[in-house]
Amino acid sequence: MKHLFLTAVAAASLVLPVYAGEPAPIPSPGEIAATAPASDWIAIAPSDLLVMDLAPDAKGKARRVVIQLMPAPFSQGWIGNIRKLAAAHWWDGTSVNRVQDNYVVQWGDATEKKPLPAGLATVSESEYVAAPSASMLDTLHANRKRKEQVVKQWRASQPFAIYTPDTRKKVDAYSDIQGFVSGWPIAGGSEIWPVHCYGAVGVGRNLSPDTGSGAELYTVIGHAPRHLDRNIALIGRVISGIEHLSSLPRGTEALGFYKSEAERVPIASIRIASELPAVEQPRFEYLSTESDSFARYADARANRRDPFFITPAGGADICNIPVPVRPVAAK
Amino acid sequence: MKHLFLTAVAAASLVLPVYAGEPAPIPSPGEIAATAPASDWIAIAPSDLLVMDLAPDAKGKARRVVIQLMPAPFSQGWIGNIRKLAAAHWWDGTSVNRVQDNYVVQWGDATEKKPLPAGLATVSESEYVAAPSASMLDTLHANRKRKEQVVKQWRASQPFAIYTPDTRKKVDAYSDIQGFVSGWPIAGGSEIWPVHCYGAVGVGRNLSPDTGSGAELYTVIGHAPRHLDRNIALIGRVISGIEHLSSLPRGTEALGFYKSEAERVPIASIRIASELPAVEQPRFEYLSTESDSFARYADARANRRDPFFITPAGGADICNIPVPVRPVAAK
Repeated sequence: MKHLFLTAVAAASLVLPVYAGEPAPIPSPGEIAATAPASDWIAIAPSDLLVMDLAPDAKGKARRVVIQLMPAPFSQGWIGNIRKLAAAHWWDGTSVNRVQDNYVVQWGDATEKKPLPAGLATVSESEYVAAPSASMLDTLHANRKRKEQVVKQWRASQPFAIYTPDTRKKVDAYSDIQGFVSGWPIAGGSEIWPVHCYGAVGVGRNLSPDTGSGAELYTVIGHAPRHLDRNIALIGRVISGIEHLSSLPRGTEALGFYKSEAERVPIASIRIASELPAVEQPRFEYLSTESDSFARYADARANRRDPFFITPAGGADICNIPVPVRPVAAK
Repeated sequence: MKHLFLTAVAAASLVLPVYAGEPAPIPSPGEIAATAPASDWIAIAPSDLLVMDLAPDAKGKARRVVIQLMPAPFSQGWIGNIRKLAAAHWWDGTSVNRVQDNYVVQWGDATEKKPLPAGLATVSESEYVAAPSASMLDTLHANRKRKEQVVKQWRASQPFAIYTPDTRKKVDAYSDIQGFVSGWPIAGGSEIWPVHCYGAVGVGRNLSPDTGSGAELYTVIGHAPRHLDRNIALIGRVISGIEHLSSLPRGTEALGFYKSEAERVPIASIRIASELPAVEQPRFEYLSTESDSFARYADARANRRDPFFITPAGGADICNIPVPVRPVAAK
């Protein structure tokens, strides 16, 4: 039986045999998500998906990146601009201009001369954070309680005591509270904000007080750069195709900008999915962060006990608990 | 004045103008490291560098990856094996076989049939952690005190109060103590262990109690997978050329394994640098984690106040404070 870290042979035989009398192997976080009931998965509206088609690669293969836009109360001013930019087909013919290792991939108009569509909002820096609504705090609290309950029940069902409890109270270097609401990782305290995890998509800007229009976007391709939280607007996350960005050659100029126009990667189009013909609309769903399945998944991320692991971590930082998202066959 | 997140124009003009009577801009973490006195930089012995040359890329360009091996008390059994494997030229003709987005790149013998050199040690799982020596705990404590003192003095020297103090006591979801000793991030409590940050290099293994020989290696190319800490041996970190691994096409089989032999990236050779001719030996140095410069650098990573930033984070997780490493011209 070979493992994850060894070979392709391993990858082909991930399911361990179960012998009579032996307890079943404890499922991995991925297995928990994969076996969650259909009712725990929530469809993402096509109107909240931004579809970026890069020019085909050197072998002619399509490169599609799908971004899920954030819900209120976060960043709605910028997201409104992004909807206008997409509707105007503004990004068509622009390019990926910067790829900095362990940091970001950035795209937009390299010339900085392309006129923006009329009517874009200028958004205030105060919008980098939001006031936590009572319902959001209630949800965070309910999710925490649900997790405690689900984990307790599940542990009690196991044939022997196996788990390191996840008991750390302050688990984050960047905020006093953190958790998941409506499918999104958030952090904060008296204010709350979305978090720069791997795949997060944000809005390039000039020096303060500029906050960016939304025309210049980036995504995280390395360790979570949480120092950017509250300093720059996050508007969504890549939910499919990030490998088309993260595997691009790194730029050799300062900050990973490409040196020549030839290195830039052309963007064929960016559209809101609901503007595409129905049959071409990509469909995705996420595992409800308000479900028992997610509670078990998050616990398993913090305390791996599937067969490869020997010592559960006893905790996990919020960016090491990516919300499961999966494609759905078109109707 | 354009910023980091906007354009190449920005990248060419990072230095802000200073006007008479205005305080100088607060330096970025990178600027603090770049202006550190030469005495704060420590040369890395060529005998602690593992030099991996991949086959040239499609354009014939060389691809060299340099890995710094860890010092005692960590992982010396595996590192001894790795020295033997390199001396035997064992990796020459093997390949990169797995590239999983936001996780790892893995290399070694895809056939799993190549005989290993004689005399490799079998290392115990107990070696995933180490007992903290008194001198290591003293160093951690001294570094904490140094940071407090340096930051206090530096802040007092500023013309106005600008800093959010970094006062969080428990800043890590994975351990009770964490810090830097002799250039390496470590975490733990009654036991200590090295940390899976971006670029960390570890040893592939089969299921427990196997611990791997060191012939199969991987490096982290995504958000720190700290759940692997204490579950698998770390032996070093990539200090140069990680882009040759992180920008490889992602494998399309389970866990990111390449499907076909044609996709694998050939490894021309792996050598300990001291075995190369003197003129070909790469030379690097790291910023002493026991220096005032590093204390200021680490504080600046947690509290960015260089011109782009408007809200300092007030903390940083250990993997968001990469130890500065730089190449040195050959003598």
